[in-house]
Amino acid sequence: MLFYGGDYNPEQWPEEVWDEDVTLMRQAGVNIATVGVFAWSDLEPEQGRYEFGWLDRVLDRLHTGGIRVALATPTASPPPWFTLAHPEALPVNADGVRLTHGSRDTYCVSSPAYRAAARDIASRMAERYAHHPALAMWHVHNEYGTDCRCDVTAAAFRTWLQKRHGDLDVLNEAWTTSFWSQRYSDWAQITPPRATQYLPNPAQALDFRRFLSDELLGGYIEQRDLLRAANPGVPVTTNFVQGGWVSVDHARWAAEVDLVAVDHYPDDAGPGAEEETAFAGDLARGWGGGSWLLMETAPNLIYTRGRMHAKEPGRLTRHSLNYVARGSRGAMYFQWRQPRGGAELFHSALVPHAGPDTPVFREAVGLGRTLRDLAPRVADAPPPTAEIALTWDAPSWWALQAPAFPAEDIDYLGAVRQAHRALYRAKLATDFVFPDVPADLGSYKMIVVPQLYLVSDATASAFRDYVAAGGHLVVSYLSGIAAPDTRIRLGGYPGAFREILGVRVVEWHPQAPGAPITLDDGATANRWIERVETAGAETVSRYGDGPMAGSPAITRNRFGAGSAWYVSTGLTDDSLEALLRRVAESAGVAPVLPGLPPQVEAVRRGDLVFLFNHGAAPAVVGELAIPGGGFRVTAAG
Amino acid sequence: MLFYGGDYNPEQWPEEVWDEDVTLMRQAGVNIATVGVFAWSDLEPEQGRYEFGWLDRVLDRLHTGGIRVALATPTASPPPWFTLAHPEALPVNADGVRLTHGSRDTYCVSSPAYRAAARDIASRMAERYAHHPALAMWHVHNEYGTDCRCDVTAAAFRTWLQKRHGDLDVLNEAWTTSFWSQRYSDWAQITPPRATQYLPNPAQALDFRRFLSDELLGGYIEQRDLLRAANPGVPVTTNFVQGGWVSVDHARWAAEVDLVAVDHYPDDAGPGAEEETAFAGDLARGWGGGSWLLMETAPNLIYTRGRMHAKEPGRLTRHSLNYVARGSRGAMYFQWRQPRGGAELFHSALVPHAGPDTPVFREAVGLGRTLRDLAPRVADAPPPTAEIALTWDAPSWWALQAPAFPAEDIDYLGAVRQAHRALYRAKLATDFVFPDVPADLGSYKMIVVPQLYLVSDATASAFRDYVAAGGHLVVSYLSGIAAPDTRIRLGGYPGAFREILGVRVVEWHPQAPGAPITLDDGATANRWIERVETAGAETVSRYGDGPMAGSPAITRNRFGAGSAWYVSTGLTDDSLEALLRRVAESAGVAPVLPGLPPQVEAVRRGDLVFLFNHGAAPAVVGELAIPGGGFRVTAAG
Amino acid sequence: MLFYGGDYNPEQWPEEVWDEDVTLMRQAGVNIATVGVFAWSDLEPEQGRYEFGWLDRVLDRLHTGGIRVALATPTASPPPWFTLAHPEALPVNADGVRLTHGSRDTYCVSSPAYRAAARDIASRMAERYAHHPALAMWHVHNEYGTDCRCDVTAAAFRTWLQKRHGDLDVLNEAWTTSFWSQRYSDWAQITPPRATQYLPNPAQALDFRRFLSDELLGGYIEQRDLLRAANPGVPVTTNFVQGGWVSVDHARWAAEVDLVAVDHYPDDAGPGAEEETAFAGDLARGWGGGSWLLMETAPNLIYTRGRMHAKEPGRLTRHSLNYVARGSRGAMYFQWRQPRGGAELFHSALVPHAGPDTPVFREAVGLGRTLRDLAPRVADAPPPTAEIALTWDAPSWWALQAPAFPAEDIDYLGAVRQAHRALYRAKLATDFVFPDVPADLGSYKMIVVPQLYLVSDATASAFRDYVAAGGHLVVSYLSGIAAPDTRIRLGGYPGAFREILGVRVVEWHPQAPGAPITLDDGATANRWIERVETAGAETVSRYGDGPMAGSPAITRNRFGAGSAWYVSTGLTDDSLEALLRRVAESAGVAPVLPGLPPQVEAVRRGDLVFLFNHGAAPAVVGELAIPGGGFRVTAAG
Repeated sequence: MLFYGGDYNPEQWPEEVWDEDVTLMRQAGVNIATVGVFAWSDLEPEQGRYEFGWLDRVLDRLHTGGIRVALATPTASPPPWFTLAHPEALPVNADGVRLTHGSRDTYCVSSPAYRAAARDIASRMAERYAHHPALAMWHVHNEYGTDCRCDVTAAAFRTWLQKRHGDLDVLNEAWTTSFWSQRYSDWAQITPPRATQYLPNPAQALDFRRFLSDELLGGYIEQRDLLRAANPGVPVTTNFVQGGWVSVDHARWAAEVDLVAVDHYPDDAGPGAEEETAFAGDLARGWGGGSWLLMETAPNLIYTRGRMHAKEPGRLTRHSLNYVARGSRGAMYFQWRQPRGGAELFHSALVPHAGPDTPVFREAVGLGRTLRDLAPRVADAPPPTAEIALTWDAPSWWALQAPAFPAEDIDYLGAVRQAHRALYRAKLATDFVFPDVPADLGSYKMIVVPQLYLVSDATASAFRDYVAAGGHLVVSYLSGIAAPDTRIRLGGYPGAFREILGVRVVEWHPQAPGAPITLDDGATANRWIERVETAGAETVSRYGDGPMAGSPAITRNRFGAGSAWYVSTGLTDDSLEALLRRVAESAGVAPVLPGLPPQVEAVRRGDLVFLFNHGAAPAVVGELAIPGGGFRVTAAG
Repeated sequence: MLFYGGDYNPEQWPEEVWDEDVTLMRQAGVNIATVGVFAWSDLEPEQGRYEFGWLDRVLDRLHTGGIRVALATPTASPPPWFTLAHPEALPVNADGVRLTHGSRDTYCVSSPAYRAAARDIASRMAERYAHHPALAMWHVHNEYGTDCRCDVTAAAFRTWLQKRHGDLDVLNEAWTTSFWSQRYSDWAQITPPRATQYLPNPAQALDFRRFLSDELLGGYIEQRDLLRAANPGVPVTTNFVQGGWVSVDHARWAAEVDLVAVDHYPDDAGPGAEEETAFAGDLARGWGGGSWLLMETAPNLIYTRGRMHAKEPGRLTRHSLNYVARGSRGAMYFQWRQPRGGAELFHSALVPHAGPDTPVFREAVGLGRTLRDLAPRVADAPPPTAEIALTWDAPSWWALQAPAFPAEDIDYLGAVRQAHRALYRAKLATDFVFPDVPADLGSYKMIVVPQLYLVSDATASAFRDYVAAGGHLVVSYLSGIAAPDTRIRLGGYPGAFREILGVRVVEWHPQAPGAPITLDDGATANRWIERVETAGAETVSRYGDGPMAGSPAITRNRFGAGSAWYVSTGLTDDSLEALLRRVAESAGVAPVLPGLPPQVEAVRRGDLVFLFNHGAAPAVVGELAIPGGGFRVTAAG
Repeated sequence: MLFYGGDYNPEQWPEEVWDEDVTLMRQAGVNIATVGVFAWSDLEPEQGRYEFGWLDRVLDRLHTGGIRVALATPTASPPPWFTLAHPEALPVNADGVRLTHGSRDTYCVSSPAYRAAARDIASRMAERYAHHPALAMWHVHNEYGTDCRCDVTAAAFRTWLQKRHGDLDVLNEAWTTSFWSQRYSDWAQITPPRATQYLPNPAQALDFRRFLSDELLGGYIEQRDLLRAANPGVPVTTNFVQGGWVSVDHARWAAEVDLVAVDHYPDDAGPGAEEETAFAGDLARGWGGGSWLLMETAPNLIYTRGRMHAKEPGRLTRHSLNYVARGSRGAMYFQWRQPRGGAELFHSALVPHAGPDTPVFREAVGLGRTLRDLAPRVADAPPPTAEIALTWDAPSWWALQAPAFPAEDIDYLGAVRQAHRALYRAKLATDFVFPDVPADLGSYKMIVVPQLYLVSDATASAFRDYVAAGGHLVVSYLSGIAAPDTRIRLGGYPGAFREILGVRVVEWHPQAPGAPITLDDGATANRWIERVETAGAETVSRYGDGPMAGSPAITRNRFGAGSAWYVSTGLTDDSLEALLRRVAESAGVAPVLPGLPPQVEAVRRGDLVFLFNHGAAPAVVGELAIPGGGFRVTAAG
């Protein structure tokens, strides 16, 4: 079975609409509904007064209709009564402003009162529904990610720091507190980053983000354990959100969920949406170790800069199948029915304001049919595999967001996306690996490392072994610069990788956007150049103009049985694609299918090949004709 | 008589300047001065110590000079002593920051202490001056518009909500509080919108803006009643400010003033200033039911993006007469004399820093003569009338300012201005009507409805009756979408108007600016397109390109004896003007005068026609030659 | 001797690095190290527990190595323990947010607790090190410039105001408090500018900035006196920072330091850096009355918009010598060794992350040699002299930063820099004079006065005497507008200078950027035009187009034995340079050297001429060949 469905909020509608909902779900082939997200104020309208009757009726009705339920604990938004009873449990921002209800997610995860209230409502749901026949999985909370700088949080942060650093001297050293008179003589002096005069301490900022991720994880685990105890047979998860600002380290969280569930909302309305979908699917598969579930995406719109973009006909289906091809166990949406009010009243839905007699609902019906037909061949197929891996590291991302770094347009997410895009356009299947998570690097012929700023000794050593054993490594500028505590690795960049790369960088020259540099092999770069000294590596290409003209730009070092490439500059998309094609060729990696037309994407999952035609014109692949904007699923040949 | 004068602040000047003021006022023909605005700290320098002597002397001196007085209560800015005595009466913003004195308008209108102090100073002025022979009118406060989110305001908001919604369940339903766990179980849980984690509830935000408007109105009424009681013969008003951010609903306030007084500051330095003037005059006349008074405009500058623009010679006169032509009972300015200090020390004045020997003062003298000459023919002339009406609705404006709407460049004010501009350029006289205010729609041959987002059942029904009876209605996209409580009207947009328009819209496609769409009749649109299904209407034109190519763009529906047009896209200025000309022609509406040159504007007031030549070159209209930048007033023919 | 060295922070490094530091310093010829800046938390890790041992060892080691010490009091950043002990001593911003540690400079200078703690640590350092043989000078604090709006500050502000204005009525008059009901009836009502509803009072804002400058100066003097008392033979200074936002009035501070020390960081990465260096050097020399010391600049980077720009080879040397040529007693850098962590971990250093085997350290070694060779000829040479002076006035700068002024792009610093740049490009040596500091204006043949907004009667009179006695004065628009209390000088702009200029300006027309105006002599202007009436002056050129076409643009007035030019518009760089060349010629001022190639700069210091070739190509001056990017120092004559 492939899951098909989405967020369902019957509490926003009169009961008579519920019958139509089940009828339409069945018509669309929906087989799962996420229920309960944000429903706390309807489940417990006053402290200690519970209203589970409506939820009973919803679950029963869905069950009768053959629709299973991902039952959410509603803890992402405490009700207004909670605010009044526990003002100290509301989050405080860096300026000391205590937020209040009126939106969602207003709680301090370190607050004992919040944690107790969350355990209480989760326990009562566990008690009542853990054995409900409709229950397919537990969905804890929603998109963990709040931030708080209050005094309770400060105390929790200190406890976390004591565990991490052990000794105050160690922390002082790791945070370089001698800079700007920040040396702590007592743990009690340490706070979260708060409004201060000028630049914050980047090590403190990074540790606080790590702490927040762990603290939120603690909140999740508490609920998971309690739900698991109520019925060990039901899987428990929470939805990971992908995007530009992410406050948890999903690679660490993945170990704690029974199934990696991902929310993904592309933010490019053009072909970039397909590339983001591929990126999101590959990254989610990495977290999930192969298997995962698309828990939310928007049926009929893409949020892009300042406006909503309605999807062209066919796009809903094509995007959805792409996630499935990349290993998702189904396709779920936010949301089933478009709300009449509330802050997201124009967020799209399978049943829009105009009702079921609409293009989007008709496409949803078709998609339901397609998923049902594909399920037998896909559901238990092994996930896609790849011979190339990209690295992803949330702490490096966070570290590179510090202010006053050498260029304000340093963009870790952008760099990883660009590397993925280059491989995607080269039709090369790609996995993700995570430096902090043990992985069999040796199973990859080629590993691409964009801006891996923080590198532990263990990671450095793993990459050394990988190359020595014959692997092909491609490392970009801004990699290996610092230890995990943010302290610079001295002696020349890229510190941790200097030996395997056989280079030493002595100076950075961040370029302004729009000032392209040409390399002597015709490649072009449009940001960042460096003064590279080779120390064993051969020069692949040199800067052709600009302040480093004549100096090495890209190098390759034979190291043991493998080779390590260094890319000291920000290549354009085309040049990066050409370089990665070249490395892949030398590493013996072939595209998913040979000879694909440019607008056609192929994804292999098990013994199936999914072919997507992202262009408007029909395309032909081998014997298969694929209509413009359409897809085909065929047996791998 | 036509009023001519402006804000006069003798308290900023030594007494010897006052004599020169009266002399110069007489020289300029000034016949009214607004006195007392912001003078609280000079009238009551310490709590309970009053200094009325200077004001006595000012009023007497003006009276002796034959100049009447619009006497203002100074309550818009409590003095510094008030701040110290009543910190709890200072406004608090959404972040919880309590503002303090140091500017103007720092008070919480819900504060009992503020209200008591305001009543006190107003009473004392009433007692002292209600029968002063110079007194022409009372001018309460100044430009009501402050905002506060404090706890006192919160309590007042709850009282207002109880009156509006009656029952908490009704409010929960109207606000869709089941979305994001906001369901209230006690009135005490409700606050104004304050700093919160993410998007606010749009219904709460809109009700808070309605509340603020009513709360400020309460403050006004309290003073009005007290002034009226002191001398029922003196009219009472307050100055309404037009502009991009307005916090009161003037259409509702108009019923409570004896004379609608308007402050207007155009923000375009080019020909847009003339179009804004026409818009402001027509809108003010709508509020005033025909009669109104220009209470403030800047003599010699237009604030535009980031700089002050000095007016070209002749512009002061032309703009001033335009307001008069559109029904104003005179022309008043902020301000008489340019101040030596204070926050607005470069705001222009009839007597600038350089003194009376200046172009602006010389033009002011000429304008005084013109107004005196015109007065006998104009003062009692009936106001302009029109066969076309435009709708204006402050709540729709506020509702469309919510974040996370389909496009961040939704711009209600811009849309209404554009429709007015199109009619203006087509030389078609225009009135305004207000959906919440009963009006005889049947007196108009044509009504234009831009982005009337919130529509009550009563309004929908009034428009239905209007069209059925033979009216011509033009409705734009984003109209009729929601009920007054912000809840969406389901089943297809534009909900409230679907029946009379004979269309059903199933999907919106907000376009990025700068991506023009061509219609199949050659018109162009540059924002917003829709998927329109006709349901009875005929298609006037179709999208020629873009994602909706081939679908209806503009439709017309015969409904009863009238017709209803739907414009599903944001036409360019030229295309909208062409469309409205076409509808006007079909509705039998003629321009003010036939055959006017493009740069000449004609406004008919009673049996007079005002002709404005906004171009630099001379123009000829019939027998009349009008110099470049000049005007003529002639008998209607 | 010429000082050569920079900020040295051994407390950030293990002791074994210190030996390498001394070795490398000797290798580079470094002869001075600034020690102790921000070291408070290492010197006093807990209140009352002092750790001077490490500093003893550092000073001894430096002394042994022949390196002298500028010993800093560490008071710019109190340690974390201070925050906990004295939360009331932390600064509060205008919104009432109390900042906390986590960066630098978090203290309220008016706080008694802070002042006591600062005196304590400074006294202990004085006691311990005042007679240390390595001690070359005391360096108090660092870059004074914090801001605070707390209640303690408010009280200090009131005390300062009482001293300045004497009587509350005088203050009410000076601040025009009758505007917007701000009249104070008790001193206790006055606060610093804080969050308020709308525009602040510009006079209050300006006095608060003056107060802050004086209050910080008080903090400095307290330490200076205490250090001086410990050993009167050791000079005391603090580092003045130049830049776009400066909160102290250096022209007033200069009288209180034994040596003007300046931090300068150019913010243009191209040729603008050279022009900024020249500007900074000339301005510093003005403050220092001829002699000064470059205390900080960045060895190898220029911070420019959003990114760090690494300097081309040769630039470190060329910039450094330029400061010396302009009177600096040496060249010092922030910083000696690039830190491994902390907020500025990528700020450049003489010893970068990559270590001494790097281009920057090699260039530093060469520079050390150059400075040592030059020292005997330069160190005691008299500073450069000039026949032209430019005015600089911090209060005018601050006053022109008020919001709601006629154009938001009014830019005092930009205007003074532009005038300096024009003289620089014309190869004309330039001094600075400060209206509030008595100076022998008569020693200059020509004085240029850009946007001297605030002018006292004494200053106006000094300029009148200067011109009457034969001087040549060039005054720009926005000069002479207001008295020092910000009140406008009435009767026509530029009030204070109307008589000597023989003009009267009645109207301003700030132009939008990018709308150039041509003058009838071919000059071009790109901002600001005015309606100028001559009253004795002759018209030099007229506006050729735009709203003032035909009116005077530039005028000259014979006044006594001299002449006074008025420039009513913002000329482009080229046109301003041409105008100032013309005035200089008429005043009999010659360039530093005749016939210099455009890319070559000449600075005369004593009997030496420094020649800088800022171009990439070699240049020839007389007999001397100067390599591209290089310099020569030769005997004048």
